[in-house]
Amino acid sequence: MASQTRGARTRQQLLDAAAAVFLECGYEGASMGEITKRAGLTKGAAYFHFSSKEALARSVLDEAVTTDGVLPQTLKLQELVDIAMGLAYRLPREPVQAAVLRLAVDNTARRLLGTAWPEWITVLTDVLVEAKRRGETLPHLDPVQTGRVVMSAWTGMSLVLDEVPSGADLEHHIASLLDHLLPSIAVPAVLAQLDTAPGRGARVALVPLGSTA
Amino acid sequence: MASQTRGARTRQQLLDAAAAVFLECGYEGASMGEITKRAGLTKGAAYFHFSSKEALARSVLDEAVTTDGVLPQTLKLQELVDIAMGLAYRLPREPVQAAVLRLAVDNTARRLLGTAWPEWITVLTDVLVEAKRRGETLPHLDPVQTGRVVMSAWTGMSLVLDEVPSGADLEHHIASLLDHLLPSIAVPAVLAQLDTAPGRGARVALVPLGSTA
Repeated sequence: MASQTRGARTRQQLLDAAAAVFLECGYEGASMGEITKRAGLTKGAAYFHFSSKEALARSVLDEAVTTDGVLPQTLKLQELVDIAMGLAYRLPREPVQAAVLRLAVDNTARRLLGTAWPEWITVLTDVLVEAKRRGETLPHLDPVQTGRVVMSAWTGMSLVLDEVPSGADLEHHIASLLDHLLPSIAVPAVLAQLDTAPGRGARVALVPLGSTA
Repeated sequence: MASQTRGARTRQQLLDAAAAVFLECGYEGASMGEITKRAGLTKGAAYFHFSSKEALARSVLDEAVTTDGVLPQTLKLQELVDIAMGLAYRLPREPVQAAVLRLAVDNTARRLLGTAWPEWITVLTDVLVEAKRRGETLPHLDPVQTGRVVMSAWTGMSLVLDEVPSGADLEHHIASLLDHLLPSIAVPAVLAQLDTAPGRGARVALVPLGSTA
């Protein structure tokens, strides 16, 4: 039990170190040597967990698509908001999230590994399908198309903010994005109840895992 | 006069070749040698126009931000639509547009050159300020924030489509994006009159320069 816990910890150290090095050097510029050094581990320990840089990058990608902290809400569309706001809170704080975005726009890495985008579109589409079933969305809504719009626009906001700082943080910009999109998604009675206030992301992301409150 | 025209043509050949090579090899992987070869020119001819790869890249960036083909419309917000749809038509057809997006998400190029994003935000913001002055927008609209949202979301749509093909082309996706955003931008009476149908981009982009129809 103790050794399994240590194993999980080592694995996480490697993922975090890999994310940091991918962010700094890009995929091609990153090496297993630099990653293990950054993680404070020996190469032997690293290769015990990951057979190659590619395997590490794939695990970083898998790690990124998570709705941890997003709790079931009375309104299904609030969960959509919570996913978007929670991720906006996490992106600047978790190297894994930032690295996944960097890898997605890196031609070499993308050709080799694909991106987390299709999986994110699926996550959002599933929420929208259920929201539509419950009558929370406008009747003509196409969940796949809207899932793609929300995910793509989210990605664009974070990439541009990185380059064109505006004084506001990513959460404020994602809140603004949602305020622009939700009137085309939610019926008015639901729209009026959705909480998109900045700070929502922190409240979502900081919920202890396993909580059901 | 003839030699000036030839000079302009040579310059354009170099810009197109540079865009193609930046797209294929990234900024760091591109060389003046490869670019001049691709343009079918001698290095001497190339350096007569551009002193370095960096100078070429800067001109590619300058070239990209254009509202050519977007004609004055009765509704100012139709011009916003036309800019977004026209660019969606051009991106897959003009290496310069695709190269600029590639350079914007390339860390090395971005640190060195900046991106076209701030200028695009300004272009859209100016249209929105005028649309608001004319009473076409919802009264609470913040032109800067909305300009940023439209530009960022546009960018995200094109990046994701590149990776997650959907069967539909960029114009269809940008039309869908606009259909999601415009209800939060336009007053209802204006909204009902805006043409976002795919095909609008081609009609905009193919207007001969200098036309006033």
